Amino acid sequence: MTPRIVFFVSDQTGVTAETLGHSLLTQFDGQEFTHVTVPFVDSVDKAEAVVLKIDAAAREAEARPIVFSSLVKDDIRAVLGRCDGLVIDFFDAFLAPLESELGMQSSHTLGRGHGMADTQSYNQRIEATNFALANDDGTTTRHYQEADVILVGVSRSGKTPTCLYLAMQYGVYAANYPLAEDELESGQLPRSLMAYRNKLFGLTIAADRLRQIRKERRPAGQYSSAPQVRFEVSAAERIFKKYAIPFVDTTEFSIEEIASTILNQAGVERRVR
Amino acid sequence: MTPRIVFFVSDQTGVTAETLGHSLLTQFDGQEFTHVTVPFVDSVDKAEAVVLKIDAAAREAEARPIVFSSLVKDDIRAVLGRCDGLVIDFFDAFLAPLESELGMQSSHTLGRGHGMADTQSYNQRIEATNFALANDDGTTTRHYQEADVILVGVSRSGKTPTCLYLAMQYGVYAANYPLAEDELESGQLPRSLMAYRNKLFGLTIAADRLRQIRKERRPAGQYSSAPQVRFEVSAAERIFKKYAIPFVDTTEFSIEEIASTILNQAGVERRVR
Repeated sequence: MTPRIVFFVSDQTGVTAETLGHSLLTQFDGQEFTHVTVPFVDSVDKAEAVVLKIDAAAREAEARPIVFSSLVKDDIRAVLGRCDGLVIDFFDAFLAPLESELGMQSSHTLGRGHGMADTQSYNQRIEATNFALANDDGTTTRHYQEADVILVGVSRSGKTPTCLYLAMQYGVYAANYPLAEDELESGQLPRSLMAYRNKLFGLTIAADRLRQIRKERRPAGQYSSAPQVRFEVSAAERIFKKYAIPFVDTTEFSIEEIASTILNQAGVERRVR
Repeated sequence: MTPRIVFFVSDQTGVTAETLGHSLLTQFDGQEFTHVTVPFVDSVDKAEAVVLKIDAAAREAEARPIVFSSLVKDDIRAVLGRCDGLVIDFFDAFLAPLESELGMQSSHTLGRGHGMADTQSYNQRIEATNFALANDDGTTTRHYQEADVILVGVSRSGKTPTCLYLAMQYGVYAANYPLAEDELESGQLPRSLMAYRNKLFGLTIAADRLRQIRKERRPAGQYSSAPQVRFEVSAAERIFKKYAIPFVDTTEFSIEEIASTILNQAGVERRVR
């Protein structure tokens, strides 16, 4: 089956169009897609250029392209509507019912969720990202009082990317602390963590998967040996249970899912919506 | 005006429902919203619990809640459809036209875009994030050969969060190099960068905004003094122009927009879709 060409057309970054488009397309097993993102289509001229591109693709392909659009302005959207593709228009489908429900007209303006209007949430995310970087990998435990959550787990269980995602997506202050050999052997948490026990959240992972991840980093040595990895994972889980630390198994989860699970289970409030 | 309650209901993390929901709601100026995200609604039982929650909110509020749903399975979705809110159902609206266009049934299954199926892109993002961390702030220039893009700019111009976002969202290998006093004064790029001139992308920022950001970090001293900040910004821009390095002004941009602009203008291919 030849791949179907899919365009994501946006007057901003295209992230919204891509997010929903991907969710929809993954529902079609066996069909392959070629993705083309066209961001910053914020004028009639640019929309006309996109239409030419889509129409050229339509002429060359066996089937017409699918076009996901998150264009906001009516005049720009009208231009795109004339292309030779199937246009799935997010705003068109949902703005009308929302307008009637809220009893008001939508503003139909660009960039409402971004830029200066959003300075405060931008700063929150940056501050949270800086916090995650400064408090990564147990570098320091001095700022744990400011943390919203402190992730604990063995090396390569997913702590760093999860902290960064929590910071960038939700503005959450997330620190992380790697469980080291002495803690795993004694089964004791250090005093610096005990003081913030209610902020702790554990990450665990299947030993096989962890071994595979570690091998990519350091193919030889104890670090990725089967007995060592099995020991670390089970010792970490014993610590989580001993101290009643909630934890999540990251083996089959994406970063987004791990982050969302933590917010949900730990009851951590996001700082950015 | 009292805030309208908005639910984001998802069988996964809720990120898709939130992304599109936010885009739509920001079109309604002056109306405030109270957000409630309910992730992981992956059974009829859980859907019934959500309906109780929505109905309770509906009884207490002046106006019925708005419910953005990205639920995939028909039986779960049918339950949600009986709530006392206005349900905006992303899948309902778009799966039918896509099914008819593609001439196939959608799988109506959960989690297609995540979990094990997505191991490869998960690994790509983690590797890219590790690359960004290892090559942050000019720590080392040894790995520039592997970089897809190398961001240059003065301290606090947005390099680190942009690199992390490029890694986590697009799997792009992004390094960053801070322009330091001697480079700004001589107007010369170091040899380590000159070898990768075609990978360089500059970030600039309005001096006032940079000063404000720096002041939050270090309120006193030269670092955030007006003449110093003005000198650094204009010296950095002179370097960009001298070496024909494309650059973007981050002052009024969100991280997402900066990242998307770089991909677009620098022609960097994403490694993850």
